[in-house]
Amino acid sequence: MSASTHGPRERIVYEAAQHLRRTGVAGTGLREVVSAAAAPRGSLQHYFPGGKDQLVGEALEWAGTWAAERVDEHLARMRRPSASRLFDAITDDWATDLASRDFERGCPVAAAVVDCADTNDAVRQAASAALQTWQRPITEALVAMGRGPRRAQALSTLMLCALEGAIVLARAQRDTAPLRLVARELAPVLDA
Amino acid sequence: MSASTHGPRERIVYEAAQHLRRTGVAGTGLREVVSAAAAPRGSLQHYFPGGKDQLVGEALEWAGTWAAERVDEHLARMRRPSASRLFDAITDDWATDLASRDFERGCPVAAAVVDCADTNDAVRQAASAALQTWQRPITEALVAMGRGPRRAQALSTLMLCALEGAIVLARAQRDTAPLRLVARELAPVLDA
Repeated sequence: MSASTHGPRERIVYEAAQHLRRTGVAGTGLREVVSAAAAPRGSLQHYFPGGKDQLVGEALEWAGTWAAERVDEHLARMRRPSASRLFDAITDDWATDLASRDFERGCPVAAAVVDCADTNDAVRQAASAALQTWQRPITEALVAMGRGPRRAQALSTLMLCALEGAIVLARAQRDTAPLRLVARELAPVLDA
Repeated sequence: MSASTHGPRERIVYEAAQHLRRTGVAGTGLREVVSAAAAPRGSLQHYFPGGKDQLVGEALEWAGTWAAERVDEHLARMRRPSASRLFDAITDDWATDLASRDFERGCPVAAAVVDCADTNDAVRQAASAALQTWQRPITEALVAMGRGPRRAQALSTLMLCALEGAIVLARAQRDTAPLRLVARELAPVLDA
């Protein structure tokens, strides 16, 4: 996302998502987000009258949509799509991002769940919705590959569980090996 | 842990871990921890001169040791241990805890990573060490079941990735289904 082609509202949502990825919900300061977005003072109140909850909710929605679009991009590039190739592409995306940014940024949805699942139901629901947005094109692709709808849903859930955990282990160890490992180990289950 | 059999230091560490599980690192207030531990004012400075970083580090160490002891307990109860039965027992523990506490508390190690991996290397290292403490008895058990050391390490990493992610999805959806699902889907890989 470049500053020149998006308005302040979009830039604020994008920067909020990136802050969530670095330091979680409680660690995300609204002033820093507005400053990073190069947005005018007062734009937060103007665009997000619901305050931090609204901004975090929209950041999660943005993240879910972005992740779903990446799934579509991976699928569009594959000559012979398979479940394991799709999971490989998703984990490779994350490994590349983590390695290139020195393990700075994790998954904003996981951050929202860890920080807010028990204390802020609006944020929890936004996190759950973002996961669904992300999972839907994966499930649909698996159905297109011949899996039944229930099986496709189970496999896409398995992918997201393994991926989310692998991101946590990778950041803890500062090593992308857990991402490579889950892609390799799940391949037989995904393609069975 | 009961208040009567443990001193204030142990109670503070325990309560810190429980607060991390509910609201993450930034959301954990030291006063609330001391109050929940029914510890005297001033005990924080007395026992934890290194401040919040020291307390969070010890809470993670406690959590890793606790989780490792649970692994040993599961193994001791199994007549015919297998990798899938061990993973089943671990995921069942989490599903039971989440369901009985209304999805209140997640994994403190994941919370520490999400909130601090980029901003607090002492906490990140403590989280990484806790994961190693937890993983070690799993790996050793898999070796005792006949896996080679490298294979055992790969499978225990796979277990922790799938488990950590399933906890995130379970709390987001307020449903233990992801935990049951990863146990079921990984069984063939774990026992292969």
